[in-house]
Amino acid sequence: MNDGAGGPRGPDELERHGRFRVPRRADGERLAPDVELHEAVQGSKPGSRYYRLTPRERQKLRRRGPGEFEATRAALLPATALGRAWSGVRRVFIGQPLATAELAHERLSKLKGLAIFSSDNLSSSAYATEEILLILMLAGSGALVYSVPIAFAIALLATIVVTSYRQTIRAYPNGGGAYIVAKENVGVWASFLAGAGLFVGYVLTVAVSTAAGVAAITSALPELHDFSVYMALAFVGLLTLANLRGIRESGTIFALPTYFFIFTFAAMLLVGIVRLLLGHDLSPGEVPNPIEPGVHSLSLFLLLRAFASGCAALTGVEAMANGVPYFKPPEAKNAATTLVWMAVILSGFFLGTAFLAREFAIVPSETRTVVAQIAQAVFGSHSPFFYAVQVGTALILILAANTSFAGLPVAASVMAGDRVVPLQFSFRGDRLAFSNGIIVVGVLASVLLVAFDASTHALIPLYAFGVFVAFTLSQAGMVAYWRRGREPGWRGAAAVNALGAAATGVVALIIGATKFLDGAWISIVLIGALMLIMWWIKAHYERVEEQLDPGRPDDDTLAQYSLMAGAARHQKVIIPVDQINRAVLRTVAYAKSISDNVTAIHITDDRERGDALRRRWEEFVLDTPIVVIESPYRSLAEPILAYVDALDRAQADQMITVVLPEFVTHRPWERVLHNQLALRLKKALLSRPNTVVVDVPYRLLH
Amino acid sequence: MNDGAGGPRGPDELERHGRFRVPRRADGERLAPDVELHEAVQGSKPGSRYYRLTPRERQKLRRRGPGEFEATRAALLPATALGRAWSGVRRVFIGQPLATAELAHERLSKLKGLAIFSSDNLSSSAYATEEILLILMLAGSGALVYSVPIAFAIALLATIVVTSYRQTIRAYPNGGGAYIVAKENVGVWASFLAGAGLFVGYVLTVAVSTAAGVAAITSALPELHDFSVYMALAFVGLLTLANLRGIRESGTIFALPTYFFIFTFAAMLLVGIVRLLLGHDLSPGEVPNPIEPGVHSLSLFLLLRAFASGCAALTGVEAMANGVPYFKPPEAKNAATTLVWMAVILSGFFLGTAFLAREFAIVPSETRTVVAQIAQAVFGSHSPFFYAVQVGTALILILAANTSFAGLPVAASVMAGDRVVPLQFSFRGDRLAFSNGIIVVGVLASVLLVAFDASTHALIPLYAFGVFVAFTLSQAGMVAYWRRGREPGWRGAAAVNALGAAATGVVALIIGATKFLDGAWISIVLIGALMLIMWWIKAHYERVEEQLDPGRPDDDTLAQYSLMAGAARHQKVIIPVDQINRAVLRTVAYAKSISDNVTAIHITDDRERGDALRRRWEEFVLDTPIVVIESPYRSLAEPILAYVDALDRAQADQMITVVLPEFVTHRPWERVLHNQLALRLKKALLSRPNTVVVDVPYRLLH
Repeated sequence: MNDGAGGPRGPDELERHGRFRVPRRADGERLAPDVELHEAVQGSKPGSRYYRLTPRERQKLRRRGPGEFEATRAALLPATALGRAWSGVRRVFIGQPLATAELAHERLSKLKGLAIFSSDNLSSSAYATEEILLILMLAGSGALVYSVPIAFAIALLATIVVTSYRQTIRAYPNGGGAYIVAKENVGVWASFLAGAGLFVGYVLTVAVSTAAGVAAITSALPELHDFSVYMALAFVGLLTLANLRGIRESGTIFALPTYFFIFTFAAMLLVGIVRLLLGHDLSPGEVPNPIEPGVHSLSLFLLLRAFASGCAALTGVEAMANGVPYFKPPEAKNAATTLVWMAVILSGFFLGTAFLAREFAIVPSETRTVVAQIAQAVFGSHSPFFYAVQVGTALILILAANTSFAGLPVAASVMAGDRVVPLQFSFRGDRLAFSNGIIVVGVLASVLLVAFDASTHALIPLYAFGVFVAFTLSQAGMVAYWRRGREPGWRGAAAVNALGAAATGVVALIIGATKFLDGAWISIVLIGALMLIMWWIKAHYERVEEQLDPGRPDDDTLAQYSLMAGAARHQKVIIPVDQINRAVLRTVAYAKSISDNVTAIHITDDRERGDALRRRWEEFVLDTPIVVIESPYRSLAEPILAYVDALDRAQADQMITVVLPEFVTHRPWERVLHNQLALRLKKALLSRPNTVVVDVPYRLLH
Repeated sequence: MNDGAGGPRGPDELERHGRFRVPRRADGERLAPDVELHEAVQGSKPGSRYYRLTPRERQKLRRRGPGEFEATRAALLPATALGRAWSGVRRVFIGQPLATAELAHERLSKLKGLAIFSSDNLSSSAYATEEILLILMLAGSGALVYSVPIAFAIALLATIVVTSYRQTIRAYPNGGGAYIVAKENVGVWASFLAGAGLFVGYVLTVAVSTAAGVAAITSALPELHDFSVYMALAFVGLLTLANLRGIRESGTIFALPTYFFIFTFAAMLLVGIVRLLLGHDLSPGEVPNPIEPGVHSLSLFLLLRAFASGCAALTGVEAMANGVPYFKPPEAKNAATTLVWMAVILSGFFLGTAFLAREFAIVPSETRTVVAQIAQAVFGSHSPFFYAVQVGTALILILAANTSFAGLPVAASVMAGDRVVPLQFSFRGDRLAFSNGIIVVGVLASVLLVAFDASTHALIPLYAFGVFVAFTLSQAGMVAYWRRGREPGWRGAAAVNALGAAATGVVALIIGATKFLDGAWISIVLIGALMLIMWWIKAHYERVEEQLDPGRPDDDTLAQYSLMAGAARHQKVIIPVDQINRAVLRTVAYAKSISDNVTAIHITDDRERGDALRRRWEEFVLDTPIVVIESPYRSLAEPILAYVDALDRAQADQMITVVLPEFVTHRPWERVLHNQLALRLKKALLSRPNTVVVDVPYRLLH
């Protein structure tokens, strides 16, 4: 019964049989077999036929050489009406797909780089001072004067962090995110911690910035206050769509609002200071819904809490370190310079805001931001300058949220490359953006905004911890980096980074301790959970890779697989049969075409009907035995599984193939009326290691 | 390349090759091929080996003869821990599965039959009078006296319907539901209408009875009033579970509460009437939350509305007609007699309630039922007899709900046999009950209870219309039945049924017209929608049957299928390959085992990596060509589909087989990390008519 043709065949033999035209190089070595489209051998008629692509097919598949094609954009058009509709919706909102070759980084000048990478940091001037004041208010309005020394402390911290990060940028000109620096210099768990911290930080950046941006809008237009959450969700939705379209690297879009903010905010501070010096009487006027002063005593703990709230201003430094390769050459130098500019502007804004807030005796309000109050005091509440400051603030805050949409997906794709997060994060979408990461950021930020009612104040305690942990690990990693390299002057560089690591580590501890009950515990729990998930994913992928390793092609493996292929032509094939109809007969025909060892199984709870089916079966299908299993408990899948189990035991070294007829209904909703047994069997069979499930479709014409 | 063994082979040839032991009868005719378990042919080693079931396997599969097995209860035990847990939960709540052979109808005496089939009707005494009074109240409390003539009208209607249905029972001793009678005597659309009417009626019976039963409880225990909806849902849930366990036919469970109700209710009416005759001063006392009298004038329309509300009392007649075969012989006579008993008791209860309500000048209340007020007037509000009446009322109402759980699934299984509803309604569950029908009733009734806040009053307008439409069709069908049969005395019988049809038809019109805006329109829309769905399902199944008809085994069909099987051994097989690993190599081995015409496809968005994979492929898999398709837009499924489309065009007469490696992960949740391409491809390929999808599992060990 063996046809003797089951063993492995090389191209030579294939060529001898005229079944493949095997192209050869000039030196006579075989090239890949050429299947222009393919060759088809019809039944007992040996010989070969070549098919050429029709002009219509060529619109979708372009032949490029032996066995090589290129899929065109036309191939993307789905076949079904539903698929085309969905594709159309995507085209409208996300745009035409881009080819991978179109992926090219726009190189950024320092001015554009500042705009792109500083929006996160600079925008924090809009809310960080306010968060400090809110904490100080717990000890009464007299405590508000401490905002200025706290602002100095944060400016000092910014100087340390930026100095330290300049060295990271020099050392990692291809992008030195905390995850990479920690992985390469500290260890796997440190990289998990840095990655998880950044992940949580990025998501919170979106939530905090959007909430603060909405607050800037509602400060100018108080009647919108009740719609804050909806506005915040709408902004996140727009950012998600915009990023799926791939606006990531268009620096010009970013430059305008960033510089608009920088100039209006700087103008506000300068005019305010000048008018104060000139002795003008400036006051924010009547403030709606002022916060009630608390009755706590002014403890060191309270001051540290206020300081911790303000540290949110520094979270954006990481973006610049990640973005080094996007700068024009010399990349590292330009990025480092831009980082210094940013630190200078940030410190100036921060100190200026704290100073004016103190001078104007500003009290935080529930419905009007501190910045809005300063602008009101400086310009008057109906001045166009007042509105300009609010618009600038809102714009840069929305842009700051965008930093995360640019940052997290890239970081996640790097981690997916290391198999630390699911591989799906490394797939580029239609527009070359890492769509899955973008969607994850958008969804999680929306969840946070709803859960915390789009309140900046409620979100801040969760915010900075993760980022400062990542800072600490990154800079500690840099210390190890310098020690290992021992380049000239490494001691000085290591000392700078060590100072940075120490400062940010202390800040992380302060944030964790003073904000723990306010919400930092949520971040800590999330970071811990993420680390465990990363560890589990990495371990899983490593185990899988080890198991799947095919070995060297020249070892026994090859022979083993070839043997398996040749030996199995008479493998066992099972067809569950519920009645005799065309679909079943077609399935039997298919089954017989793949093996000469086919058995049908009929399950019945009525012996007489089982016998009747057997008689009818033997009229129709003479050469395929049928096994009738009476199932008194009416279960269909279980008896088949028991039978397959027994077969499996009897021939442990072979596959068992179960062939199922499956109806392809004319209308999708008609599916519910069919395929019940097939569905249940498939579910049960798919988890069996040695059982191959074959779906033979039968198209119902109407 | 053709091995010459592809054609059809008969048992003779198979036997010659020693591959099957073909048993023969005494007269030499072949019996079914005997595959004790099966025979396995190993590779090039021809010959046969028989495997016997091991003792452990014999626990699951018992061999009964050549090619015949029986699955035991042990085969039902799922293999996975999750499956076993779910099975355990089912065992606890639903019980051990029962074999089909254990299906035996308990035959019912007239006393038990009355208990089972009359609970629906008799229980309506508990709320129908109240519904009449509620309508009359719209014209002020003076209109309440009209309840007695309306009760007489309903008693007359009951007499007509029961007399008419006695004839149906005699004519259909195997069960004469409205669906069957309408189908056999009127037409398909009439049967749809009857079926849809009954379906809606059955679901509403559950909702109305449960709501009224809960009202009986809360009348006795007013503090439970706020939990009415939850109590109603709990009762429906319990009934669903109980019916899934299969309590359907245990008459004794039903007999006790029904007779308890009959005796307590009768006692209440008798004691009330006697005490009235003795001149006692009876009054229900202070009634909480009385309904405010309306200011409508007492129109004919209002009286008809009140009448229509009371007609809900008759909805249970259908159950008796369906249940004829469950009676002891002579079935039809016993059932007809029982039906008369029921009508007598129902009329007595109905008239007695209306009479006492008038005598006691009872005004409906929002929180205390009319029956509770009567019981209070007769026995005093803290008498044990008062509580006995409430308990009896609640019990029989819950039992009445159960009538639907017994009736609808059986009716649906009959309709499923006619392919008018999905086939799933004809499957018996573990305990032989028609589980799907039971679950559908439970879910829909729960939805109604929540939507209408478990208010009997709100549900009543929806209720009786569907049932009376079914009555009308059933009795009109009987008129046609007698005319066709022309048995002796057929004219008299036809006249009785015609009177019944006319009466119920008029009532249906009255209900539809007077209750239209109150909610009958919902029933009418639902019935119309159900009819369309039934028509669509029946038409679909008919089209499918026609397409699937295999024809006679002696015509060309047979040869055609055999040819197909023999011809296709070299069919085209495609393997999408993303990398070279053990799982892929195993899949290739499997693919080569089913065809010698295998091509691998690799999709890449990076030509260099594609070339590298091709080189590596040719080291590992010399004899299987690989096609590399560059997909610049990074789509994976679409280029493969375009390729398969081209193949499909090139060989329109053959199947194309796509073989996919699929990972079986060690832990179920690890699945999210794998099989992404396979899942997407399967979804896209499964709707193609000529493409067979093969899943080759690869079990990851840890």
